[in-house]
Amino acid sequence: MDHPQVFRFSTQISHLALDIGGTLIKLVYFSANGDSIEESRDGGSIVVGNNGCSVVQGRLCFAKFETRKIDDCLEFIRLNILHHSSGVQHPNGTACDKLSVKATGGGAFKFADLFKEKLGIHFDKEDEMHCLVGGANFLLKTVPREAFTYLDGQKKFLQIDHKDLYPYLLVNIGSGVSMIKVDGDGKYERISGTSLGGGTFLGLGKLLTKCQSFDELLELSHHGNNRVIDMLVGDIYGGTDYSKIGLSSTAIASSFGKAISDGKELEDYQPEDVARSLLRMISNNIGQIAYLNALRFGLKRIFFGGFFIRGLEYTMDTISVAVHFWSRGEAKAMFLRHEGFLGALGAFASYKEQSQDNSEMKPQHHTVQRAILNCSGDNVRHFPVTANLNDGETIECSISLV
Amino acid sequence: MDHPQVFRFSTQISHLALDIGGTLIKLVYFSANGDSIEESRDGGSIVVGNNGCSVVQGRLCFAKFETRKIDDCLEFIRLNILHHSSGVQHPNGTACDKLSVKATGGGAFKFADLFKEKLGIHFDKEDEMHCLVGGANFLLKTVPREAFTYLDGQKKFLQIDHKDLYPYLLVNIGSGVSMIKVDGDGKYERISGTSLGGGTFLGLGKLLTKCQSFDELLELSHHGNNRVIDMLVGDIYGGTDYSKIGLSSTAIASSFGKAISDGKELEDYQPEDVARSLLRMISNNIGQIAYLNALRFGLKRIFFGGFFIRGLEYTMDTISVAVHFWSRGEAKAMFLRHEGFLGALGAFASYKEQSQDNSEMKPQHHTVQRAILNCSGDNVRHFPVTANLNDGETIECSISLV
Repeated sequence: MDHPQVFRFSTQISHLALDIGGTLIKLVYFSANGDSIEESRDGGSIVVGNNGCSVVQGRLCFAKFETRKIDDCLEFIRLNILHHSSGVQHPNGTACDKLSVKATGGGAFKFADLFKEKLGIHFDKEDEMHCLVGGANFLLKTVPREAFTYLDGQKKFLQIDHKDLYPYLLVNIGSGVSMIKVDGDGKYERISGTSLGGGTFLGLGKLLTKCQSFDELLELSHHGNNRVIDMLVGDIYGGTDYSKIGLSSTAIASSFGKAISDGKELEDYQPEDVARSLLRMISNNIGQIAYLNALRFGLKRIFFGGFFIRGLEYTMDTISVAVHFWSRGEAKAMFLRHEGFLGALGAFASYKEQSQDNSEMKPQHHTVQRAILNCSGDNVRHFPVTANLNDGETIECSISLV
Repeated sequence: MDHPQVFRFSTQISHLALDIGGTLIKLVYFSANGDSIEESRDGGSIVVGNNGCSVVQGRLCFAKFETRKIDDCLEFIRLNILHHSSGVQHPNGTACDKLSVKATGGGAFKFADLFKEKLGIHFDKEDEMHCLVGGANFLLKTVPREAFTYLDGQKKFLQIDHKDLYPYLLVNIGSGVSMIKVDGDGKYERISGTSLGGGTFLGLGKLLTKCQSFDELLELSHHGNNRVIDMLVGDIYGGTDYSKIGLSSTAIASSFGKAISDGKELEDYQPEDVARSLLRMISNNIGQIAYLNALRFGLKRIFFGGFFIRGLEYTMDTISVAVHFWSRGEAKAMFLRHEGFLGALGAFASYKEQSQDNSEMKPQHHTVQRAILNCSGDNVRHFPVTANLNDGETIECSISLV
C-alpha cells in the first residue's frame, strides 16, 4: 500500500487519543465516513465549513484493552489506525518520532517510552483530571440523550440545560475513584476520592471467585444474592427492624458479616453470592462518599463515570439508592452512556483547545466540532472495530481541519 | 451453698449489663472488693455515703464472647455472676423470671427468650445508640486518661474539659459502623454509618486467609505489607507522584488493585499481606466517612470506639492519618481505652438513670457512683476473669445502694 498524503494528517495522529489507567486502556479515535478520507472526499463526507475549514464527517469510535495486555493495544493501533485506510499511515509504514498523540492517565507517563519505541508515537500528555472533566463536559453539552437517571428499574434520559449544568460532582470510578467538583470548562477541583473502586471489585473478586475478567464477575454478580453473606439488620435484631433509627431488617449492617459465624469456608459459598455482595459493598460505599462530598458543596447533581458501571442495572440501582437514601431524596445520581471514555474523550477534545490557543503554532491539530444528533439511546449505532476486541457506541460527529 | 440475703441484690442483677452485637457479646459487671460483699463489709470496702446510702467499693469488670458461642456466655454468667460469692445467687440456684438485667444491641431482642429460658434472666432492653452514647459520656467524664490521640507512633492522653466536651462525633465500629453526633447527656443523633466494619474485616479476612479469629487476623496483618496487593499511585504513574492533586506515589489508588494484573491466585499471596490490605482498606474508609460526617456538623473531635480497634497501633494510625489527611489537619481522631464496651457500659449506666428517675418504683437498682483515680494508662489493673476467656482493664469504682 502506498502512503497517500491526505490533507494534513501526515505528521499528527490527532484523531486518536488514549487514556491509560491502572486496569484499562481506553481509546477514542475518529473514523471518517466511507472507506477512507480520500474516498469520502468523493463521497461527500467532507465539506468546507463557513470559515473555510475542511469538515470531515465521521464517527468517534471507542475501544478498550486491559492495561496488562498492552501489546494488544499496540497491535490494534498499528493495524487499525497507523495503517488505516483513513490515511494516517506514516510514510515508511513504521516508527517515526514525529507522530504525536494526546494521552492521559498514569500510563501516559509509565508507557511513554514503550509507545515511542514500538510505534514511534510521542505522547502529548494531558492531565488526568483535566481530561475527565473535559470529556464529561463535552458529552453533557454536545451529545443528546447522554445522561440519565436510574431508579426503580427505570432509565430516564435528562434534558440538560447547558446554562444550568454547573456546578456538578463528577465521580469517575476507575481502578480507584476520583471525585471532582466541576464549575465550568476547565474549572474544577478534585475534592475527594476513594481507593475502593473498580480495581477493588475485580481484584477482590478474582481472589474470591477465581473469575478472570470484569465481565465474568459482573455476570456472576447478576445471579447472586447478597443476603447469603452480608449480615443484615434483621440478622442481628432477630428478624425485626431497628426502626428507631430508620434501619429496616433488610438493610446491610455488615458487608460479608455472615462469613464470620456460619462456619463456612470460601468454597462453601456460591461465587455468584460473593460477587453480588462485593458489588453491593463497593457501589454503596461510592454512592455514600459521593453524596457526602456533594453535600459539602451543595451539589445537587452527581454524574458517575468510569468503566466500573458499564450500564449494569444493579450497579446503577445500588448507587442511585445510596445517593437517594443518604440525601433523603435531595441529591440525584446520574449516569452517562459513554461513561468509560471520559478521560480519553477529554484528551481528544484537548486537541481543540490547543488549536484554539495556538493555532499559529500547531496548525495540524483537528477539532471535534459537533456531534450529530442521531446518537441517541434509541438510535445507537454499533461499530464493531474488530470482532473480538471491543464494541462501542460510536458518536457521529465531524472534525474540522484548521 | 445457701442463698444469703445480701443487701438488696437479691432480685435484680443490677451489677451486670450486656451488649449483644452481631459478632460479639460484651459484658460489664461489678465486682466488689474482697471475696464477697459480705466479707467486704467486714473488710471495710463498704462505706455509708453522706446521703445515707451504702457504698460498695469494687471494680467494673469486662468480658467478651463471640455471639456464635453464646453458650459460653450463658455458662460464664451462670458460674461467675449468678453463683458468684458476691451474693447474687438466686434463692433456688436456677432460673427465675424475676431476675432482670440491662441489655442492649440487636441480640437483646434476638436472644431474650434464650436468656430467660436458660438463666431465668429477663432483659430490660435499652436502645443501642442510647447506650453507646451513655457509655462514651460515662468514660469521657468519669475515667481519667481514658481518651487519647495516636499519631506518628505516639499515644497522647487528653485532658478533656467536661464543659467543652460537646458536640463530638462518636464512631462505633462493631460488625457495622454507626456514626453518632453527641450533643450532651442523652442528646444525640445517629447521622451516618457504613456496612464496611469489623464484620467485613473478619468476614472477608476469613474467606481470604482461613484465619479463624479476629485476633489471629490482626496478628497476621501486623506482619504484612499492603503494597503487595494494593495498586499504588506510583504503580499507575510509573513510579512518580501525581503531585498536581497531592497524591504521592505511595498513596493507595486502588485497594486490592494489583490482584487484577499480576497473574496470581489467592494461594500465591501471603495471608499477612492480604490481612494488611484489608485492615488498611477498612480503617481508611471508616476514617474518611467519619471525617466527612464531622465536617457536615463542624465537629472537631471524633472518638472511635467498638471492638474493631483493640488498641492496635496500625489500625489507629491508619484511622488517624485518614482523618488528618482528609481534614487537612482540622479534625482529630481520638480513641478510648475501653473502646469495646461503650454499649455495655451505657446499659450499665442506665440503671442509674432509672434509679434517679424512678427511685420510688425501683429501689433495688444500684448506681455507678464514680470511678476511682487509679485506672490510668500507667497504672492499669488487669483482672483476669477466667484464664481462657477474657482479660480486661477493670475500672475501680464504687456503687451506691439507693
